[in-house]
Amino acid sequence: MSPSPSATPFGDAILARADELARHSDVAPADVPDGAARPLTVTYLTTAHRACAADLVAWMRDDGFDEAGIDAVGNVVGLYRGTDPAAPRLLTGSHYDTVRNAGRYDGRLGIFVPMACVRELRRQGRRLPFDLEVVGFSEEEGQRFPATFIGSGALVGDFDPAWLDLRDADGVTLRDAMRAAGHDPAAVATLKRDPARYRGFVEVHIEQGPVLATAGLPLGVVTAINGSVRFVGEMTGVACHAGTTPMGQRRDAATGVAELALFVERRAAQVPAIVGTVGQFHVPDGSINVVPGRCRFSLDLRAPSDALRDALVDDVLAELAAIAARRGLSYTLQETMRASAAPSDPALRGRWERAVAATGAPLFHLPSGAGHDAMKLHEAMPQAMLFMRGEHDGISHNPLEAINAADTQLAVEAFLHFLVQLAGDCLS
Amino acid sequence: MSPSPSATPFGDAILARADELARHSDVAPADVPDGAARPLTVTYLTTAHRACAADLVAWMRDDGFDEAGIDAVGNVVGLYRGTDPAAPRLLTGSHYDTVRNAGRYDGRLGIFVPMACVRELRRQGRRLPFDLEVVGFSEEEGQRFPATFIGSGALVGDFDPAWLDLRDADGVTLRDAMRAAGHDPAAVATLKRDPARYRGFVEVHIEQGPVLATAGLPLGVVTAINGSVRFVGEMTGVACHAGTTPMGQRRDAATGVAELALFVERRAAQVPAIVGTVGQFHVPDGSINVVPGRCRFSLDLRAPSDALRDALVDDVLAELAAIAARRGLSYTLQETMRASAAPSDPALRGRWERAVAATGAPLFHLPSGAGHDAMKLHEAMPQAMLFMRGEHDGISHNPLEAINAADTQLAVEAFLHFLVQLAGDCLS
Repeated sequence: MSPSPSATPFGDAILARADELARHSDVAPADVPDGAARPLTVTYLTTAHRACAADLVAWMRDDGFDEAGIDAVGNVVGLYRGTDPAAPRLLTGSHYDTVRNAGRYDGRLGIFVPMACVRELRRQGRRLPFDLEVVGFSEEEGQRFPATFIGSGALVGDFDPAWLDLRDADGVTLRDAMRAAGHDPAAVATLKRDPARYRGFVEVHIEQGPVLATAGLPLGVVTAINGSVRFVGEMTGVACHAGTTPMGQRRDAATGVAELALFVERRAAQVPAIVGTVGQFHVPDGSINVVPGRCRFSLDLRAPSDALRDALVDDVLAELAAIAARRGLSYTLQETMRASAAPSDPALRGRWERAVAATGAPLFHLPSGAGHDAMKLHEAMPQAMLFMRGEHDGISHNPLEAINAADTQLAVEAFLHFLVQLAGDCLS
Repeated sequence: MSPSPSATPFGDAILARADELARHSDVAPADVPDGAARPLTVTYLTTAHRACAADLVAWMRDDGFDEAGIDAVGNVVGLYRGTDPAAPRLLTGSHYDTVRNAGRYDGRLGIFVPMACVRELRRQGRRLPFDLEVVGFSEEEGQRFPATFIGSGALVGDFDPAWLDLRDADGVTLRDAMRAAGHDPAAVATLKRDPARYRGFVEVHIEQGPVLATAGLPLGVVTAINGSVRFVGEMTGVACHAGTTPMGQRRDAATGVAELALFVERRAAQVPAIVGTVGQFHVPDGSINVVPGRCRFSLDLRAPSDALRDALVDDVLAELAAIAARRGLSYTLQETMRASAAPSDPALRGRWERAVAATGAPLFHLPSGAGHDAMKLHEAMPQAMLFMRGEHDGISHNPLEAINAADTQLAVEAFLHFLVQLAGDCLS
């Protein structure tokens, strides 16, 4: 009696590949305490990183890609040729670098899923009417050097030559790291894609949040990658004796920030998909018996469109000013980051919706609160993402990050539906 | 033409004495940078501390005290005999030790004022019908050893022999410090006063707060030394991604503490003389893009009666529990201090009111938010305090601490009225 075939062959294969790729880590086995799990850390152009790239190239060839190689910035690029070389290509992929002590699926799922599709198309002997280009981006997490989106940035002409002088924690420059890996920094400029040659970019990614898990759904179509603004600030009042200063004569910096944090929470909750966070909240040298004279805080404000983001920022800054005026406080505020929202392309998003519907899974929409390679490609071409549920409420950037085979199976099926429907539309 | 006499001779004399006593400090002149003011720091039984005691004894003798000396715990004790040795004594005084980098008037004013009264009574050749005992308490601030009220504690039998093994920052025990100063630790127990021998304790002190300065008044009669309770706690929620976690799915520890801090502020403001403070407010390792999973905080709650204090504590703890339940948070809370309120004795307080009225200054009442020697004496006998305005909104525990001669003049006049009225009542 032969074993019954798996109901989730695509999912099983991807989980196995994720496990296999996770054998490469910047953390040497000798540095792991007895009995502890070896942390997964793969940062830009380390030995482990280059071993991952080599595996991906080998697997792409095994899957039946017509071309597979590593470009000048370390991206793994696979091409599955279509029947019409002149037709605009579809670009897809995600990153294979990781944060420190990472999970196995962040980024990598978005490379494995289209690879599984190519393997299946090849098994069926089927060609699409357009080239499918699958990229494993070499860098997205900004861990080794103080730069992010090095891989996807190169494809949109956004690789800053000044980055070559950035140094890692050991003092190695990005330039030397690239040369040591056999890459020619001067060739990075040639990697820029001509948007006219592409119909767009799609990316499959784990959600890295709890929304799909809470909804009990395997897949979600991304409406937009949220735009964000970050600030750090300090509220200043008057430090004074907690026993002798009547409530009406205080200028308490911490209760000022407390009001702000609660306003941010209320204001963000009023609009779906908007989030606002005071992640840093700190009275320096705070004493039990001293009314806080200073309080440091941060603001992280995100929304699915720049208009919604800017309205949120305006309201929060107006409230901050009002709180300070009412309480006799002063403050400093410094913007540390501003990123535009990347709304999903309506046509590509519609294709994801039809693809999900074709799998039989319920249709569900959500924004992406985190940044992704698609945010970078958005600068050059239409894009739309598909999110897949993570286990354990979507925990990510953590070894507990997990997915299940059934969801992964559905993600591959949805991607196949996406390709087949797009192929049909091209031919009709 | 001779210079016109000062309108504030008592005030002038006290300011001069405060300046003179401030020449003694634990900080060696050699340790002060060129051009900087020498910080005033006088901690228990140091060389500077003993020099202060010697000055006080000498000045008491010069003022006409019948007895003046230093007791076994370092208190300076002066006696101005009355006409009836059997009549209950009046006890008064305050402390001459200081915090680090202190002002010149915290504590010391309450020794100088009754000394000025004795000097004036002696000048008038006047005796009271009761003994007046003036004590310069040796220790109130808890700076050198982790114990407070060592001086006033000895008078109420509350000198803990276990304290003798406490060590200062240099490893010197309290026992050795006392012996080096010529004191016999075993004799401290003999210092306990028999409450039946005293009609009560009164203390003049700078307010150390902004209330009198804001009201534009020189003197205030203290209604009670507030009772207090202190807690340190930690709120625990779930740290998660600030971008990917919808507002409705968060368990933000910091916004939980923010709600608590604002509740404390509102609740305390509802009742005059009550104060509540969250002085420590800290998200450990807070990141801009992480929803706070933990937040440390402190609570300092004070009220002029134990009933008001306990009602405040009950309300705050109930709100803390409600916030945690509503937000899905948990918390730890540890009580670190609990002190009973010390309401002023109505009779002694009434005497202060009449004494202030007799100076022509407007009558004003306020609670004491800080602890004082009177709080310790309260354990054994009736007590009532008189507060004097501090300059610069009452700043204290700071070299900027200041008083003016006119207010000080009024404080001495009020104390003289207090004594004369009490004398009159004794005789009538």
